Amino acid sequence: MSPRTQRRLTSQGSPGFVSLVGSGPGDPDLITLKGVRRLREADLIVHDRLIPHRLLAERRIGARLIDVGKAPGRHGFSQTQINALLVAQARRGLQVVRLKGGDPFVFGRGGEEAEVLDAEGIPFEIVPGISSSIAAPAYAGIPVTHRAQTGAFAVVTGHDLDSPDTDWGALSRVGTLVVLMGLGRLGALSRRLIGHGLQAETPAAVISRACTAGQRVARSTLRGIEQAAQDLPTPATVVIGRTVDYAERLDWFRPEETPGAELAATVNPGTIAGAAS
Amino acid sequence: MSPRTQRRLTSQGSPGFVSLVGSGPGDPDLITLKGVRRLREADLIVHDRLIPHRLLAERRIGARLIDVGKAPGRHGFSQTQINALLVAQARRGLQVVRLKGGDPFVFGRGGEEAEVLDAEGIPFEIVPGISSSIAAPAYAGIPVTHRAQTGAFAVVTGHDLDSPDTDWGALSRVGTLVVLMGLGRLGALSRRLIGHGLQAETPAAVISRACTAGQRVARSTLRGIEQAAQDLPTPATVVIGRTVDYAERLDWFRPEETPGAELAATVNPGTIAGAAS
Repeated sequence: MSPRTQRRLTSQGSPGFVSLVGSGPGDPDLITLKGVRRLREADLIVHDRLIPHRLLAERRIGARLIDVGKAPGRHGFSQTQINALLVAQARRGLQVVRLKGGDPFVFGRGGEEAEVLDAEGIPFEIVPGISSSIAAPAYAGIPVTHRAQTGAFAVVTGHDLDSPDTDWGALSRVGTLVVLMGLGRLGALSRRLIGHGLQAETPAAVISRACTAGQRVARSTLRGIEQAAQDLPTPATVVIGRTVDYAERLDWFRPEETPGAELAATVNPGTIAGAAS
Repeated sequence: MSPRTQRRLTSQGSPGFVSLVGSGPGDPDLITLKGVRRLREADLIVHDRLIPHRLLAERRIGARLIDVGKAPGRHGFSQTQINALLVAQARRGLQVVRLKGGDPFVFGRGGEEAEVLDAEGIPFEIVPGISSSIAAPAYAGIPVTHRAQTGAFAVVTGHDLDSPDTDWGALSRVGTLVVLMGLGRLGALSRRLIGHGLQAETPAAVISRACTAGQRVARSTLRGIEQAAQDLPTPATVVIGRTVDYAERLDWFRPEETPGAELAATVNPGTIAGAAS
């Protein structure tokens, strides 16, 4: 008997269970074994927009899907609505998978969902996912650390450009800096970092639609990266630091040889064979 | 035909192939589908000491194992020897998996191995793994980011306490700070960060043997963490910052209910619809 099943049978008043599962960065093959097992067992999968939609075909017959993601021109669920949905469906006794892009605890609001589940007495677990903060650079041939270059890296989002709590001066001096969701404000980001003393000639890259057949990479300097990346679509990961130069030689990934992954960020799950909920 | 096979058949002079595979943080179920598939296909698995050894049972009949890890009282292979081994075995035409703890590009010297493979003309790929920098905190109920607390995190190793290139002042101001391999010098680490102005009352945790049945967690303040963690064995992950306090409520993982985790062997990775590689 699995720990989940055990807990389901022994918990009183909250017979359901919620797994907060990270789907990884784009390639459906980068989900964990534990994650795909949870998908196959789930009664209900509550998923974001930016997940490899191919994974949804792993659900068992009869399992329901709910897409809570925001898409252009469409209202998504608010975080409060998502929280309430998870609680209500688990209270009905369902095994719920909350499937999120990347890792649930890296800018995924997994912490907030876990807090609500805890407060409502719903048992839950975290199933980590490969974070695009590390994997997107890796798929462009960029190690976030390298003994000869940098012993540290930091991860932040572009949204934090406006946050008074984010110390961009400190971030500019850590070593490798990875900025998720930073493409839309790449010029402001570059200027901010240069203003804090990071050299304008520091190597920089943008990895668009990482780990899929649609992956595209732009490389330049911190000063030049906005222009170099101007045609790239979101989602994208920005990486800044000396290890970016390794991409010149270590650029191993061939998106054009990856027919299985192109659906990751682009296709509505309703159009995948058998995925109609 | 998989890209790997294709490449093997079309490359001239280097018929083998090396996959640099991350095994994840400890639970064998946290390897990726792609990673376990590579293990099952490999002719040779060259592995570190700190990997979930249960994964090695996934190898096919006839596949060889070479343990290149350093163990107490035993000389491991030098990095130069490991590099030479990978090159020589790939040149023989073998499918080689280089299995590493966590993620190959996070303090794993994967960058150095990839450089050598590139220089020697050996085709290779990176298969990311779940990094304990994110998963160890998650298994203790600690999100490395949280909208209400911190929008950034940084990762460094305890070895970098001696590095003149590491800016500990900057690291102390990023948000959540994760220190891998930091347990042995926890006192020096705490004093260094406090010396740079990080408040001595900042919450801190040590997660020992994360994501395994042997996981143990110590929590205290930055000032008190050395004493609180004094009995914990390595390997361990140190995490410092306000999100550590979430562990009080979000501490979901029950090591005692984890008899070696669920068997990796029970999931067949060949069945993800359409996955190409």
